[in-house]
Amino acid sequence: MTIKIFVTGGTFDKEYDEIKGILFFNKTHLSEILKMGRCKLKVDIKTLRVKDSLEMTDEDRKIILENCKKTKEDKILISHGTDTMIETAKVLANSMKDKTIVLTGAMIPYKFDSSDGIFNLGSSLAFAQTLPYGVYISMNGKYFNWDNVRKNKETGKFEEIK
Amino acid sequence: MTIKIFVTGGTFDKEYDEIKGILFFNKTHLSEILKMGRCKLKVDIKTLRVKDSLEMTDEDRKIILENCKKTKEDKILISHGTDTMIETAKVLANSMKDKTIVLTGAMIPYKFDSSDGIFNLGSSLAFAQTLPYGVYISMNGKYFNWDNVRKNKETGKFEEIK
Amino acid sequence: MTIKIFVTGGTFDKEYDEIKGILFFNKTHLSEILKMGRCKLKVDIKTLRVKDSLEMTDEDRKIILENCKKTKEDKILISHGTDTMIETAKVLANSMKDKTIVLTGAMIPYKFDSSDGIFNLGSSLAFAQTLPYGVYISMNGKYFNWDNVRKNKETGKFEEIK
Amino acid sequence: MTIKIFVTGGTFDKEYDEIKGILFFNKTHLSEILKMGRCKLKVDIKTLRVKDSLEMTDEDRKIILENCKKTKEDKILISHGTDTMIETAKVLANSMKDKTIVLTGAMIPYKFDSSDGIFNLGSSLAFAQTLPYGVYISMNGKYFNWDNVRKNKETGKFEEIK
Repeated sequence: MTIKIFVTGGTFDKEYDEIKGILFFNKTHLSEILKMGRCKLKVDIKTLRVKDSLEMTDEDRKIILENCKKTKEDKILISHGTDTMIETAKVLANSMKDKTIVLTGAMIPYKFDSSDGIFNLGSSLAFAQTLPYGVYISMNGKYFNWDNVRKNKETGKFEEIK
Repeated sequence: MTIKIFVTGGTFDKEYDEIKGILFFNKTHLSEILKMGRCKLKVDIKTLRVKDSLEMTDEDRKIILENCKKTKEDKILISHGTDTMIETAKVLANSMKDKTIVLTGAMIPYKFDSSDGIFNLGSSLAFAQTLPYGVYISMNGKYFNWDNVRKNKETGKFEEIK
Repeated sequence: MTIKIFVTGGTFDKEYDEIKGILFFNKTHLSEILKMGRCKLKVDIKTLRVKDSLEMTDEDRKIILENCKKTKEDKILISHGTDTMIETAKVLANSMKDKTIVLTGAMIPYKFDSSDGIFNLGSSLAFAQTLPYGVYISMNGKYFNWDNVRKNKETGKFEEIK
Repeated sequence: MTIKIFVTGGTFDKEYDEIKGILFFNKTHLSEILKMGRCKLKVDIKTLRVKDSLEMTDEDRKIILENCKKTKEDKILISHGTDTMIETAKVLANSMKDKTIVLTGAMIPYKFDSSDGIFNLGSSLAFAQTLPYGVYISMNGKYFNWDNVRKNKETGKFEEIK
């Protein structure tokens, strides 16, 4: 069993540009996080985008969808910015019926020493292995069906709608 | 839904005694790890032991078993040293049929900046929510049935027997 | 002997706002850094400003100068953003002749796990104890007289002019 | 100006053996720490020993002394375990009159995320640049003449004798 991982960016991968003093995207840290977690799952990582999810376009989502369709694995993890994660989930849910797709992200970049990224990656890889086919958001140790979750903009917490 | 967490010690909770220059057990770091992971699950943490699993006795295992029986929650996570984790799992599996019990540990103490503990805790809490009743070992992003796993003493890796 | 520490902000104290996804200033981390360094010097920390040094005004510099004049200690450390650190040093050097004043900063916020802040704070406190009266910049393990240093904008490195 | 750095081991360089679950010495982390500190000093690092200072022998100290004599640089930093640091300083002080030699160590290994090592290295490199010829202990942000310091075994703190 191999888990396919699609990287699309998000807070997970934000780095600090020490010359300019700003946050920016360079490359993904997913492999590094898996190494720290001593993860022994077979994973196949493909970077589709490395960007802020507020800048994610319809075109970007189409490419994510196509890659989900095309891949032969039926367990997929997508790292994604939290702001528009649910929108992307909706696009996928419309077409993807026969795979388990888990979207996850981070509230704090991995490069900060208090990041939640490694915890989220751990729980999301577990959900990808055990949940039935469908599209899910995995945050804060919980999983949500794509159509029963919202991000509370004030607390940053994901919560069930009903 | 509440997940019951029983702390028994293990590498997770090893600290460095800066006066004596040795590793020792003081208190559990589970709450701290969950806070870093921004975990929003309802959990109820009870510390049963904080010791090296090589020093775990039959009496200790009996107490773990009794606590598993007594607790009303049917989703249980046990933090445990990796050396004798499988022995404890066996004791539990003989009596516990109607709960999901996940044992996990760490190869590197949480207080080291390269610890796998937070990753393991993330995946184990996910497994506790999604796996059917039974007793499992969760390490390296994977889960194993209690009777189909061994710890490879040379690599430190958990692997299936068959 | 007490070392007076004036906090004015800078990269040292940048934090990550996990709701908005941006860097911001909240409070200083100087005490926390000194605690991690097991620093046993007598220090007296006073926060004057917590801001980006690009936004430092003439008025801000006047307040820093007045505080340097007013304090009875003759060993002063100032934490400051690196972009305009040299400008502030110049303002101080014009009036302060009978104290040792060391300005230091960080290229990477303390909250990142690869921060240079704790190293800089260590060397700057040592320079404050040992250098003769004057105004100095302390970065990258080195010290510079205030009138013989520039920040190389491309490399982020402080270097001697001559 | 180049600062000579002699590595002799000590808590600085203790690592965690994840298979055996114990602390051990592998190699020095000095270069790594200097890189994190964005140190731009010219340094020349030579590893003499990588061991616990409780196991340091007369022979070891003789080798440290000979290296101090032989090196052409007159600014020397020695990383050393804290338990017998003062003994080594005494051996050096008997023969070395025309160099500035600073011994430093760590209470917490660098690989722990709360290590004081990087702070100590920062202040020690500053002391090596600014103190007059002599042999010094640098710990906790302070420097001590070799013959006016003791390690308080209960608090782990270095303090002046008189």
